[in-house]
Amino acid sequence: MPVTDAKGRVTALPVFAGLSSPNFHTAAMDGFAVKARSTFGAGPDRVIHLKIGISAWPINTGLPIPEATDAVIMIENVNFLNELEFEIEKALVPWENVRRVGEDFVASEMILSAHHAITAYDQGALLAGGVFSVEVVQKPRVLLIPTGSELIDTEDFVAAAPPPGSVFEFNTVVLAGLVENAGGTAIRHSIVPDQFDLVKTAVLSGVRSDSHLVVVNAGSSAGSEDYTAAAIGELGEVLVHGVAMMPGKPTILGVVEDKPVIGNPGYPVSAILSFEVFGLPVLAAMQGLSSHRRPAITAVTARKIPSKLGREEFFRVKLGKVGQRVVAAPLPRGAGSITTLTRADGIIRIPARSEGIEQASEISVELLQHPDKIDRTVVIIGSHDLTLDLLADELIPSNLFVSSSHVGSLGGLLALKNHSAHLATSHLLDVTTGDYNWSYIRRYIPEIPVKVIHAVMREQGFIVPKSNPKSIRGFEDLVRDDVTFINRQAGSGTRVLMDYHLQLAGLDPRHVKGYDMEEYTHTSVAVAVLSGVADVGMGVLAAARALGLDFVPVATEQYDLVIPLEFLNDDKILTLLEVMRSRSFKNRVLALGGYGVERTGEEIPEPLDRV
Amino acid sequence: MPVTDAKGRVTALPVFAGLSSPNFHTAAMDGFAVKARSTFGAGPDRVIHLKIGISAWPINTGLPIPEATDAVIMIENVNFLNELEFEIEKALVPWENVRRVGEDFVASEMILSAHHAITAYDQGALLAGGVFSVEVVQKPRVLLIPTGSELIDTEDFVAAAPPPGSVFEFNTVVLAGLVENAGGTAIRHSIVPDQFDLVKTAVLSGVRSDSHLVVVNAGSSAGSEDYTAAAIGELGEVLVHGVAMMPGKPTILGVVEDKPVIGNPGYPVSAILSFEVFGLPVLAAMQGLSSHRRPAITAVTARKIPSKLGREEFFRVKLGKVGQRVVAAPLPRGAGSITTLTRADGIIRIPARSEGIEQASEISVELLQHPDKIDRTVVIIGSHDLTLDLLADELIPSNLFVSSSHVGSLGGLLALKNHSAHLATSHLLDVTTGDYNWSYIRRYIPEIPVKVIHAVMREQGFIVPKSNPKSIRGFEDLVRDDVTFINRQAGSGTRVLMDYHLQLAGLDPRHVKGYDMEEYTHTSVAVAVLSGVADVGMGVLAAARALGLDFVPVATEQYDLVIPLEFLNDDKILTLLEVMRSRSFKNRVLALGGYGVERTGEEIPEPLDRV
Repeated sequence: MPVTDAKGRVTALPVFAGLSSPNFHTAAMDGFAVKARSTFGAGPDRVIHLKIGISAWPINTGLPIPEATDAVIMIENVNFLNELEFEIEKALVPWENVRRVGEDFVASEMILSAHHAITAYDQGALLAGGVFSVEVVQKPRVLLIPTGSELIDTEDFVAAAPPPGSVFEFNTVVLAGLVENAGGTAIRHSIVPDQFDLVKTAVLSGVRSDSHLVVVNAGSSAGSEDYTAAAIGELGEVLVHGVAMMPGKPTILGVVEDKPVIGNPGYPVSAILSFEVFGLPVLAAMQGLSSHRRPAITAVTARKIPSKLGREEFFRVKLGKVGQRVVAAPLPRGAGSITTLTRADGIIRIPARSEGIEQASEISVELLQHPDKIDRTVVIIGSHDLTLDLLADELIPSNLFVSSSHVGSLGGLLALKNHSAHLATSHLLDVTTGDYNWSYIRRYIPEIPVKVIHAVMREQGFIVPKSNPKSIRGFEDLVRDDVTFINRQAGSGTRVLMDYHLQLAGLDPRHVKGYDMEEYTHTSVAVAVLSGVADVGMGVLAAARALGLDFVPVATEQYDLVIPLEFLNDDKILTLLEVMRSRSFKNRVLALGGYGVERTGEEIPEPLDRV
Repeated sequence: MPVTDAKGRVTALPVFAGLSSPNFHTAAMDGFAVKARSTFGAGPDRVIHLKIGISAWPINTGLPIPEATDAVIMIENVNFLNELEFEIEKALVPWENVRRVGEDFVASEMILSAHHAITAYDQGALLAGGVFSVEVVQKPRVLLIPTGSELIDTEDFVAAAPPPGSVFEFNTVVLAGLVENAGGTAIRHSIVPDQFDLVKTAVLSGVRSDSHLVVVNAGSSAGSEDYTAAAIGELGEVLVHGVAMMPGKPTILGVVEDKPVIGNPGYPVSAILSFEVFGLPVLAAMQGLSSHRRPAITAVTARKIPSKLGREEFFRVKLGKVGQRVVAAPLPRGAGSITTLTRADGIIRIPARSEGIEQASEISVELLQHPDKIDRTVVIIGSHDLTLDLLADELIPSNLFVSSSHVGSLGGLLALKNHSAHLATSHLLDVTTGDYNWSYIRRYIPEIPVKVIHAVMREQGFIVPKSNPKSIRGFEDLVRDDVTFINRQAGSGTRVLMDYHLQLAGLDPRHVKGYDMEEYTHTSVAVAVLSGVADVGMGVLAAARALGLDFVPVATEQYDLVIPLEFLNDDKILTLLEVMRSRSFKNRVLALGGYGVERTGEEIPEPLDRV
């Protein structure tokens, strides 16, 4: 194919130069081409005169020097006497300021090896060598067959929501992107319903087409409608069914009529990770390329990560650099949650022989993002609030990113103690004084000098289904027999607030049905109410609004940032505080509803009476 | 644009989920959906019976669970009693093995921030969230204007060689690739001759077109036909002319009619590095992306690297891991040599305030290749031979690479002393015994235990112009008045051989004209002969053949690998030796001509008489 179109393609054979580069003796400087011999003896005390057109010829960089010449005088070293003559004070050696024939490479020299992915630089080298077309390896063609009666094609459907029980088929869109990134061509088959004969027919016509690899997604598990293994087995051979990785366990590797067939798992994260582990090396091998893992760095774990013995477990993590250490905070492990990949900065693999790793262990992290991003990430651990998402969004123009882990207010303070975060978010009410946060800081992290910066005031209240069917108005309604509550985890500020109000109202937590059911974020409390797990939970207005639920305000509370002094002058923190104080951020917070920003960004001094 | 086509595009606005994911309560396992309450109390001693279709409903992973149910019994935990009934020995808690609505994200949650480059993973997340189209940032359009009367377009010209004095225009092909890699669209203008009015017209019509950035390549220097600065200056404003980097110094940054115009230097390496430093950040900013340097690693320098004060100097380097250290060997610094970029593994930047760095200094290297390649590279330092290129090519299928630095045989031995190489290549003749290499090893690196493995026997001879116009037949011809010689550097095996033969013939080196002119490789000796710098040089047949020169054989010599014992069992070295012993490699060596492979791969024992 033409070299000008060959970027990203892979050479089939070594490529040799047709021409030397340069192909003639070339001026390396602007000035005058001369015979070096005619300058011999020149010096500051003994200038030599040269005549333009007779003993010196004007020349520009990159042009061939006249045949009789072998050196170039730099224009800066010329003293003009008149329009036809100049003098020089310095002799030249032969070939000074000249690029000789073949200086870069000579004709017949190898420019590119076989099985080399052609870069833009390589295109230049090939053209410099007079090579205008190049034999490249055929792009591997990958047929992606989505199977599943519940699937609908996004291109057939543009309404707001899919019919009940249906899900959009997007795994093959993602896999097609991975195939293209790996130098292949993806063909997306139409959706095949869960019927054995149809799956079998699709696989057979796939391997008999011009594709080099067939991927069936999914039907690779052990469910009653998982036909992939049976189809491959009847048509050819199943080599592997089930692999010791998680996510990705129900992977099938098979051969039908001498073509490789992969049965890929159905959960999106499983589908992606399994294809990366088993599919991409096949594509690399088909092109004669070596297959690489992503570049890796060393990090320490933000918390203990338990893992099952007997399978290699892949965790998606957020990364940030706190002090000299890169801290890896695991994201949720659900294989159905594709945002655990889109939000991840890296992937850690816990070996099959390990039961997990302790907090602050050193681990290798395969990077999904540019390593610069790690240095540009503010690590926030603590209480969850939706305004953190806005803050992250407002920081993007400053090229700053946020890794926020939601472990509750107290968990955030303890993360500061472990030097795992740049700042903690906290709304811990001291029920004896009505103050927030400082008494907890004194008690739990007295050795860490911090400042407290106020973020937002926010309304906490009861999140209830639309129209509040159980007419919940106050805390006394929570002990009703017909009301099930969903709680937040111990150590969260919302839990402290809840307990305080129960106490104020003289109510016994043991009489609140569901008091022991805990969730970790406002959003998951709202999801619990939406899905009917509970009739009511406590949280912020924005979480209720996001899911179309109703909200009964019960209290206004103070949500703050707790920042160790050691990070207070960090550029990232300074920018974060500046953004938080900006009108733009405050307006977006107010638009969420249920928030007050009157004192946002102000320092909350340690109460004087107790210092 | 449609999400399915949006990979690589950049979001213009934050993107919010239209649907929750999952959008209904979904079975997370294959098995039976049940009401958890109906399993309460089950245990090994107290099995509970469930009836299919009455208290339990078959379900597969990913499907919605029936409305009355809230948990899924894994198929593995079911003991069938008959076709309609089964028993279980374990109770379920509500929502066990169920993915609840919004587990990944809820409707209205932000899926992607603004100014985010969309990945394949992101496409999946967007489709999961019911987002089928996405607002993206316009791709920046970059107009690339090649200027130069010596240029010819490769697409207009398909013969083997360009007309005398012409060069193929390929800088804009490379720059177009860099623009595309950075998310832009490149438009290549036709070649503009070096005429002020034509350059000015091209710039003006460029900024008035729909392009967002205009790049003039080149005419940015101080030559008599460098019109770019004047053209930009007349049409708008030159902000910068000349930057403190090398290569890349004659860079122009300007503005015409509110559009940025870059005057890029003409040498290919300068053109590329300058555009990467000044052009790519503009493209990133136009898309709201942050611009990243390449990922970097720390290495030690294989030799001293002098650099000029007052400008940041960019060196292209080969990298390899020797023991625990990554060794960076600088490639030639010529800005005209594009292969210094295509062959490089990384780039080091020596700051403007530095006069260079000492050998074995720690430096940061920006990677051009995947870091895995460093671990897969055999570092060879020593005498140059063309068979090293073949060896490198034969190692590619084994996913091994070669970094070979040509410093002469003695330089190679000294590199082993510094632990900078896995092996040295050497052909040092002991003129008193006729043996090769061992006496030098004993003398120069007695403290490094090594083995010597024979590579090839090769013919050395006189490289002379086609038809040998000066009729050079033997060493006595080298002292003729009409003959100019080109020598190899002191410490090279070829130099030792030359001196030995002069001595045998009783000739005085001072009578050889050109004895003081030194080159560092066989190929550069051949280039010197081809270009008329010398009438004759000493080297191998293959170098003469590659340039169509004639060859007068004078001696056969032994070219060996010197391998420290510490690397002898390294997998890379074992593979290299295996490849060297293969028929395929030997056949390719024989095809070069002038080589013998009878004992290739055999160990050359240390001569017994002197151990």
